[in-house]
Amino acid sequence: MDSMTIIAVVSIIMAGLTTGFGTMGPALGEGKAVASALAALAQQPDASATITRTLFVGLAMIESTAIYCFVVTMILLFANPFWTAGQ
Amino acid sequence: MDSMTIIAVVSIIMAGLTTGFGTMGPALGEGKAVASALAALAQQPDASATITRTLFVGLAMIESTAIYCFVVTMILLFANPFWTAGQ
Amino acid sequence: MDSMTIIAVVSIIMAGLTTGFGTMGPALGEGKAVASALAALAQQPDASATITRTLFVGLAMIESTAIYCFVVTMILLFANPFWTAGQ
Amino acid sequence: MDSMTIIAVVSIIMAGLTTGFGTMGPALGEGKAVASALAALAQQPDASATITRTLFVGLAMIESTAIYCFVVTMILLFANPFWTAGQ
Amino acid sequence: MDSMTIIAVVSIIMAGLTTGFGTMGPALGEGKAVASALAALAQQPDASATITRTLFVGLAMIESTAIYCFVVTMILLFANPFWTAGQ
Amino acid sequence: MDSMTIIAVVSIIMAGLTTGFGTMGPALGEGKAVASALAALAQQPDASATITRTLFVGLAMIESTAIYCFVVTMILLFANPFWTAGQ
Amino acid sequence: MDSMTIIAVVSIIMAGLTTGFGTMGPALGEGKAVASALAALAQQPDASATITRTLFVGLAMIESTAIYCFVVTMILLFANPFWTAGQ
Amino acid sequence: MDSMTIIAVVSIIMAGLTTGFGTMGPALGEGKAVASALAALAQQPDASATITRTLFVGLAMIESTAIYCFVVTMILLFANPFWTAGQ
Amino acid sequence: MDSMTIIAVVSIIMAGLTTGFGTMGPALGEGKAVASALAALAQQPDASATITRTLFVGLAMIESTAIYCFVVTMILLFANPFWTAGQ
Amino acid sequence: MDSMTIIAVVSIIMAGLTTGFGTMGPALGEGKAVASALAALAQQPDASATITRTLFVGLAMIESTAIYCFVVTMILLFANPFWTAGQ
Amino acid sequence: MDSMTIIAVVSIIMAGLTTGFGTMGPALGEGKAVASALAALAQQPDASATITRTLFVGLAMIESTAIYCFVVTMILLFANPFWTAGQ
Amino acid sequence: MDSMTIIAVVSIIMAGLTTGFGTMGPALGEGKAVASALAALAQQPDASATITRTLFVGLAMIESTAIYCFVVTMILLFANPFWTAGQ
Amino acid sequence: MDSMTIIAVVSIIMAGLTTGFGTMGPALGEGKAVASALAALAQQPDASATITRTLFVGLAMIESTAIYCFVVTMILLFANPFWTAGQ
Amino acid sequence: MDSMTIIAVVSIIMAGLTTGFGTMGPALGEGKAVASALAALAQQPDASATITRTLFVGLAMIESTAIYCFVVTMILLFANPFWTAGQ
Repeated sequence: MDSMTIIAVVSIIMAGLTTGFGTMGPALGEGKAVASALAALAQQPDASATITRTLFVGLAMIESTAIYCFVVTMILLFANPFWTAGQ
Repeated sequence: MDSMTIIAVVSIIMAGLTTGFGTMGPALGEGKAVASALAALAQQPDASATITRTLFVGLAMIESTAIYCFVVTMILLFANPFWTAGQ
Repeated sequence: MDSMTIIAVVSIIMAGLTTGFGTMGPALGEGKAVASALAALAQQPDASATITRTLFVGLAMIESTAIYCFVVTMILLFANPFWTAGQ
Repeated sequence: MDSMTIIAVVSIIMAGLTTGFGTMGPALGEGKAVASALAALAQQPDASATITRTLFVGLAMIESTAIYCFVVTMILLFANPFWTAGQ
Repeated sequence: MDSMTIIAVVSIIMAGLTTGFGTMGPALGEGKAVASALAALAQQPDASATITRTLFVGLAMIESTAIYCFVVTMILLFANPFWTAGQ
Repeated sequence: MDSMTIIAVVSIIMAGLTTGFGTMGPALGEGKAVASALAALAQQPDASATITRTLFVGLAMIESTAIYCFVVTMILLFANPFWTAGQ
Repeated sequence: MDSMTIIAVVSIIMAGLTTGFGTMGPALGEGKAVASALAALAQQPDASATITRTLFVGLAMIESTAIYCFVVTMILLFANPFWTAGQ
Repeated sequence: MDSMTIIAVVSIIMAGLTTGFGTMGPALGEGKAVASALAALAQQPDASATITRTLFVGLAMIESTAIYCFVVTMILLFANPFWTAGQ
Repeated sequence: MDSMTIIAVVSIIMAGLTTGFGTMGPALGEGKAVASALAALAQQPDASATITRTLFVGLAMIESTAIYCFVVTMILLFANPFWTAGQ
Repeated sequence: MDSMTIIAVVSIIMAGLTTGFGTMGPALGEGKAVASALAALAQQPDASATITRTLFVGLAMIESTAIYCFVVTMILLFANPFWTAGQ
Repeated sequence: MDSMTIIAVVSIIMAGLTTGFGTMGPALGEGKAVASALAALAQQPDASATITRTLFVGLAMIESTAIYCFVVTMILLFANPFWTAGQ
Repeated sequence: MDSMTIIAVVSIIMAGLTTGFGTMGPALGEGKAVASALAALAQQPDASATITRTLFVGLAMIESTAIYCFVVTMILLFANPFWTAGQ
Repeated sequence: MDSMTIIAVVSIIMAGLTTGFGTMGPALGEGKAVASALAALAQQPDASATITRTLFVGLAMIESTAIYCFVVTMILLFANPFWTAGQ
Repeated sequence: MDSMTIIAVVSIIMAGLTTGFGTMGPALGEGKAVASALAALAQQPDASATITRTLFVGLAMIESTAIYCFVVTMILLFANPFWTAGQ
């Protein structure tokens, strides 16, 4: 295998792994947060504005870690510095 | 094995892994969120509008991580930059 | 092994893995959701309409991740772009 | 090993793995759902009609993921496209 | 090793694995369901008819996933299409 | 190694694995069921007839998965179709 | 290594594994059952006859899976059909 | 390595593994049973005779699985049929 | 493979792994924190200012560990000292 | 490596593994038993004689499984039958 | 591969692993601490000064372990003694 | 590698593993026991003499399993019978 | 690879692993301790002096295990006896 | 690799592993003990003398297992008998 093929291969592998596994944590964390928000709403419906706002900020923070993974995947696939250097 | 075959092979492998494992987290997270929503509905039926709306926003956020995985899989199968570069 | 055989082999492997493991998460998540729905029904039978509707929407969302896996499996088996390209 | 043997071998392996592991999730999920249904029946016997109906719909949804696995296994054993292509 | 030996070997391996591991999930799921049924009986003895009937339907559903595994094992041992094709 | 030796070797391996691991699930499931039955008896001694009967049916169902494993082990050791075919 | 040595080696390996790991499940299951029995006795001393009887039947069922493992180990060590066939 | 050395080696390995891992389950199971017995004694000191007797029967059953492991280890070390056959 | 290729390859691999796995912990930790904040809001709506402020400080601390991972990934991809040294 | 070296090597390995891992179970089991005993003492100080006696019997039973591991280690190190046979 | 390449390679690998995995523990620990702080605030808003101060000291302690990991990563990347020695 | 080197190597490896992993169980078990003792003291300060005495006996029992590991490590490092035999 | 390179390589690997994994335990343990301290403060604000002092002593003890890991890492990187001996 | 290099290499590896993993158990155990002590202080501030004393004795016991690991690491690095023997 020539050098560029190897780099392509590992880029593909890591692109898949980073997104495939890296979204597990956020998905579970968001599930937990949403579940807690719903329980909070059922317990204190009057505070729904505060609860919803806090939930959205929290989801955004958690989603950011999933975004990091997706960004790294996109960099590896479409803006890979080592692939560009070898071309 | 020539270079393109290797790239095809790892693309197939990662396509399967990314979707196969990457949907575990969202599925479990959504299961948790739905379960919590149902418990909230049983406890406070009057707040069903708020609960349902919050649930759907939450499910959409969680589903987004599954979508990331599916998108990466589709890119690897049908718009693979390294495969195109080698053709 | 010639190139097409390798592609066939990994396609078969990933077809099985994607469905075999990818349906674990949805199955467990749906089990959790259904279990919670039944507990909710026992606690608040009057809200059965809302509970059942919410459950079905949630199950559909969770089932969608299983569908993704099944779709990828079918693509790998019957519409594999790399297999077609090699024929 | 000639190409067809390899394809046969991995088909057998994945047939077993897909069913053997893929039925774990549904079995556990159904166990959870049935357990919850029984607890619900003990708590609210009057709602047995609703509970039973919801349980059966839920079990059908969960069983569907097991069916996916079984279908993929049957395809790999008796309608394997790569095996047919090689004959 | 000639081709038929390899096929025989992997058939034996998968036959054992499919049954050996595939029955774990159903066994645990059934244990959970039975445990829940007994707790329900202790709580609400008057509903024993409904509880028992629901339990048996549930056990049948769960057992079906164990049956899938056993069927695949039997197919691999006694009606293996690849073995028959090679004879 | 000649072909028959290999078949013998994997038959021995799978015989042990199938029974050794396949009985874990039933043992744990039965332990859970029995534990629940005893708690139910302590809570509702008057329903001991129903509880005991339900327990035995449940244990029989769970034991059946252990029996599957044992049957496959016995088939592999004493009625192995591939061993017989090779003799 | 000649054929008989290999068969002896894997027989020894599986003999140890089958008993060593196969007794984990029963031991844990029995521990759970006994623990539950003791809690039941503390809660309802008057039902000690029923509880003890049910416990012993349950322990016998669970022990049976440990016995399966021990039997397979003894067969592999002292009545191994493949070893006998090779002598 | 000559045949007898290999048999000695795997016998030593399995002797250690069988006892080293096989005693984990019983130790944990007995710990659970003893812990439950102590809680039962604290709750119902008057039933100490019944509790102690049931505990000892239970511990004996659980210990039996550890004994199986120890017996297999001793057979492998001092009465190994394959070692004897090869001498 | 020449030296620079190897360095490129491991840089890609570690870039993906560091972000893919390193964001799991923060995502789960933030999910837990947000869930707890929502429960706290439901219990004590009057303290929402203090709760929200404490939550944001906590999320910032947890997010910092995800940032570390992302920084290391960016260093490996775009400011790799070993890659620069070899050019 | 000559035969005796191999036997020495695996004896050392198994000696360490058997004690190193085999004492995990007993340590955890004893920790659970002692913890339960202390809770029982706090709840029912008057029954301290019975509780202490039962605890010591239980600890002795659990410790016995650790002793088995230590005995096998000592046999492997100082009374290894295969080492003696080879000298 | 020459010596310096190998050292560069393992430095990159360990840099990623140390940060990628080493931040999991702190992230989860901080999540737990923050969650507990929020629950404490909801329960006792009057003690918010003490709670916040204790939380920040605790977070600093936990963050210190993440800092250790980050420091080791930076040393490996930019002040590697073995790399410097080889230049 | 000559024979003595191999024996030295595996002795070092097992010395580290036996202590490194073998102390996990005791540490966790002792943590549980101490935690339970402190809870017991808080609940029943008057029984502190009995609780402390029982705790120390229990800690000694648990510590004994850590001592076994340490003893085996010391034997492997400083009184290794196979090393002595080879000198 | 010459001897010094190998020693450098494993020193780097173990430096990263020791800190990367060795700080997980302390981080989780400290998180638990801090979480418990905050709950204690919320329950008994008057005892904040005692609680805070006990917490800091405990954190110091737990942090000491992280320090051990960091010290070993520093020894391996900057005061490695085997590296010095080989220079 | 000459013999001394190998011994140095495994010594370094085990030094890191023993401390890196061996401190996990004590750290978690101490975290549990400290957490329990703080909860006990909040529940029974009057018994703070007894609780603190018992906590310190317990921490010392748990810390001892971490010390064992550290001692073995130091022996491997600075007083390695096999290294000394080979010099």
